[in-house]
Amino acid sequence: MNFLRVRNKPWADGYIKAHADYIVIDPQNWLGKWQSRFEKSQPLDVEVGTGKGQFIIEMAKAHPDINFIGVELQKSVIATALRKFMTAPLPNLQFVLTDGANLDEFFHPDEVNKIFLNFSDPWPKKRHAKRRLTSPGFLKTYQTVLDPAGTIEFKTDNRGLFEYTLVTMNHYPMTFDYVSLDLHRSAENETNIQTEYEEKFSPNGPIYKLVAHFNA
Amino acid sequence: MNFLRVRNKPWADGYIKAHADYIVIDPQNWLGKWQSRFEKSQPLDVEVGTGKGQFIIEMAKAHPDINFIGVELQKSVIATALRKFMTAPLPNLQFVLTDGANLDEFFHPDEVNKIFLNFSDPWPKKRHAKRRLTSPGFLKTYQTVLDPAGTIEFKTDNRGLFEYTLVTMNHYPMTFDYVSLDLHRSAENETNIQTEYEEKFSPNGPIYKLVAHFNA
Repeated sequence: MNFLRVRNKPWADGYIKAHADYIVIDPQNWLGKWQSRFEKSQPLDVEVGTGKGQFIIEMAKAHPDINFIGVELQKSVIATALRKFMTAPLPNLQFVLTDGANLDEFFHPDEVNKIFLNFSDPWPKKRHAKRRLTSPGFLKTYQTVLDPAGTIEFKTDNRGLFEYTLVTMNHYPMTFDYVSLDLHRSAENETNIQTEYEEKFSPNGPIYKLVAHFNA
Repeated sequence: MNFLRVRNKPWADGYIKAHADYIVIDPQNWLGKWQSRFEKSQPLDVEVGTGKGQFIIEMAKAHPDINFIGVELQKSVIATALRKFMTAPLPNLQFVLTDGANLDEFFHPDEVNKIFLNFSDPWPKKRHAKRRLTSPGFLKTYQTVLDPAGTIEFKTDNRGLFEYTLVTMNHYPMTFDYVSLDLHRSAENETNIQTEYEEKFSPNGPIYKLVAHFNA
């Protein structure tokens, strides 16, 4: 969520250290041990770029039979998510402060059931295309950690990023399970959980959604 | 173009018969002989559902080095296209009154270079999905007549039909060469040639475009 203004938050460091039961800052050390951080061993879904946390917190509430991990690179942003979460902690949600590019360094192959990408930074300049979370390099990492039956669920309001993603996922190749070019006016919206950004900016234009899986 | 109101036109039959040099009503009899109907032998592009003809006429003007065929099922609609064309006939455009479902009965395998599908009837009811010009059955026919390096260029303003087409073409599988979710605000619009319908209705919402080819 690099494109929302990030304020420096002097309290973030201390807050993160004080809540080490719910947030991980050394994910490599938890390789193969993620399930031990949850109340129950159950399927694992991961959001990459979890921002201020509304989506993953609401998902964890709605799906107690799934364990969730919210990964976020920005310390002050994930600290805000964590603070929101601590008002009503859940046994099936953990946060990880790290770069989504390294998922395969702290998850085993096939360990993840679903990957959520919500309103990722569009990196509109062509020379920055590799930084987009749906570029082929990132897809390769997701493929490694995703269960073969697993899916990527991608939402954005950025037309250029969605056009790019339709092409990169088609080329990879991945198979499309669901496409909406206006999620909030689709039947699927009944069960849609919104991010903070989505709530704020969706009146400005359509929300796009793509669900896809890797070809066997 | 079934969803524009079609008026009965008593003059259509006679007009079509009187212009047999430019319109074919017995396409099966022209199998293997299409190039003889044009001034020069050159690559062949086909529009399926050519409607009132503005797109294919403008394309033929802009690309004298390509032969074009406009296929349309509705007699009174293609008669209107033909009348428009006869105000300034071109040596590289022919019309065919027939059903696009039968392309493989009058084109040889690999004979066609490009297929254009513009603002096809969305057939929104699920039980009519097979009638959509981008359903798997139609794609199979296009694959037969298209050169292996050939492409399908599809435009629509119908969100449901575009979502459906992204999925059917991805599943077929086909590879995406270009996707725009708002063609009239894309760089590619500089060379876009509009249909009558597109001119009239594009102020109401985005025009979607997909260019794709069949996997080898």
